[in-house]
Amino acid sequence: MKVFNEYLEIVNNAIATLKLPGQPAGLYDPIRYTMDAGGKRLRPVLALAACEAMGKDPMTAIHQAIAIEMFHNFTLLHDDVMDNADVRRGRPTVHKKWNEETAILSGDAMLTTSTMLLAIKAGDHLASALDLFNGTAMNIYEGQQLDMDFEQRLDVTVEEYMEMIRLKTSVLLGCACGMGALMADAPFETQLQFFNYGVNLGLAFQLQDDFLDTYGNPETFGKAIGGDILNDKKTWLLIMALKEDQTGKLREIIGSNINAEEKISTVREIYNTLNLPDRIHELIRAYIDTAISCLDTIELMPEARAFFIDLALKSATRDK
Amino acid sequence: MKVFNEYLEIVNNAIATLKLPGQPAGLYDPIRYTMDAGGKRLRPVLALAACEAMGKDPMTAIHQAIAIEMFHNFTLLHDDVMDNADVRRGRPTVHKKWNEETAILSGDAMLTTSTMLLAIKAGDHLASALDLFNGTAMNIYEGQQLDMDFEQRLDVTVEEYMEMIRLKTSVLLGCACGMGALMADAPFETQLQFFNYGVNLGLAFQLQDDFLDTYGNPETFGKAIGGDILNDKKTWLLIMALKEDQTGKLREIIGSNINAEEKISTVREIYNTLNLPDRIHELIRAYIDTAISCLDTIELMPEARAFFIDLALKSATRDK
Repeated sequence: MKVFNEYLEIVNNAIATLKLPGQPAGLYDPIRYTMDAGGKRLRPVLALAACEAMGKDPMTAIHQAIAIEMFHNFTLLHDDVMDNADVRRGRPTVHKKWNEETAILSGDAMLTTSTMLLAIKAGDHLASALDLFNGTAMNIYEGQQLDMDFEQRLDVTVEEYMEMIRLKTSVLLGCACGMGALMADAPFETQLQFFNYGVNLGLAFQLQDDFLDTYGNPETFGKAIGGDILNDKKTWLLIMALKEDQTGKLREIIGSNINAEEKISTVREIYNTLNLPDRIHELIRAYIDTAISCLDTIELMPEARAFFIDLALKSATRDK
Repeated sequence: MKVFNEYLEIVNNAIATLKLPGQPAGLYDPIRYTMDAGGKRLRPVLALAACEAMGKDPMTAIHQAIAIEMFHNFTLLHDDVMDNADVRRGRPTVHKKWNEETAILSGDAMLTTSTMLLAIKAGDHLASALDLFNGTAMNIYEGQQLDMDFEQRLDVTVEEYMEMIRLKTSVLLGCACGMGALMADAPFETQLQFFNYGVNLGLAFQLQDDFLDTYGNPETFGKAIGGDILNDKKTWLLIMALKEDQTGKLREIIGSNINAEEKISTVREIYNTLNLPDRIHELIRAYIDTAISCLDTIELMPEARAFFIDLALKSATRDK
């Protein structure tokens, strides 16, 4: 097994040497721009690590790993159009730098390219890899639709929220882990356990993201704090607070036109009163424990086991 | 072999019984709305007919045929967002009936669903079918990008235009024919000849579309005549006229604010003076002849040959 940064280097190298046509530039330049923007590369690293953990050269899964990363970047690109977001990873979004038509079309091309990458050297695993990938993609669209549906509602339950982030975010981490195991010829049961590990890791990851958006350090987190509060975004924090706040103060603030700084600090105060920062970390820890318990059923070398446990624990305590 | 309408009935029946999840409705309702809107269904019919022409039950290719039709409808859905079109097949476009986010996300889900359909019962042909399908999809995005690039230019050549419509429109007809032959276990050479037949048919088809947009009967054509002229769309007619009009009148009219009816009749007059209606039909006839000559290299039963010749000839003379 390698350490995270060694897998990361393999991934970044594969992305840097990705062969895309040059013309028409209006179609392919935004794809390169998007793929070169960096990011954690968590999904492709998971795929390579799962492949190596199952005893195969991680390069066996490199095309499938990059396929998943490209798919992930495609969803961000189209999400940014839908959310009308201006900035992604510190740079203008594609629809701001170019225009909306370009963002839609280049995103479509990224989705098709990701399927093409998935098929490269997939061999006998092509049908299974495609099933896993396409099924995951449909889950992600469903999650995005639910997320948009929730914008119109104040009565979203915690269960509905957890199902939404399972679909929108977590299954792709599960898909990455399962894909690595599949490419390493692991039995279906093992693929499934890797998938479940990834899904639980993803749930913890998203909850930590919700926490950091409200309580993070803007210097390390890399974006302004309080965006979710300002947008009345139905996160775990807001949903719990809406359910438990007896003062009626929270419902008053939502949708009101009070000053941004005041809104953030008032809502944060309500969250603190309800002890939500501690409680979200208990929940995160529970998902991390579940993720780690998925590893128990897989026959793993100690260093492979240590890699995935370490990754899970770091996700729960990350500050960026 | 069956007649066109019998294949059409098979296609429409398969689309009507397509199993899509019910929830979230915001994601799946627009897909059903789009697929139920009708249209010529030319591509799936070509796929089924090519499959039967190669001696197999046309149902062998039914999932791949519907995959191509769903892909086609996905491109129309996203094109309508990019073009900000209000009406498609006599009904409000998805982004008008719902909203733009819905149109983008449902389109993405249609693209993934089309790949899922493609894989159903593809058996040993999965890798080849996926290659053909994804390669075609990339061509179509490139064609759409060129089409958008042309909007900013007055110096588009006929060669550039023909390459654009080859990519944007024609290869998908080629893909449909080739896919039917592939699913029927036809040798690669035969798949290629079917593909070439479809591409040439597609070029003829698009040129006839250009003609009808300016010279068609609004009653039979189903949409207002002159839209291309009003939008200064770089069609074969406009590109030829820009090249050959010595009076300077055409360049004066383009981009000017003259009355719509006057613009259409003046531009049409210029086209007539240059004899473009006759000349575009000569060109269409040449592509139809090339399409038919592709059939010569394929061993076909007389009734299969007659089916594809008849379809080609009708495309050249269609009025809707």
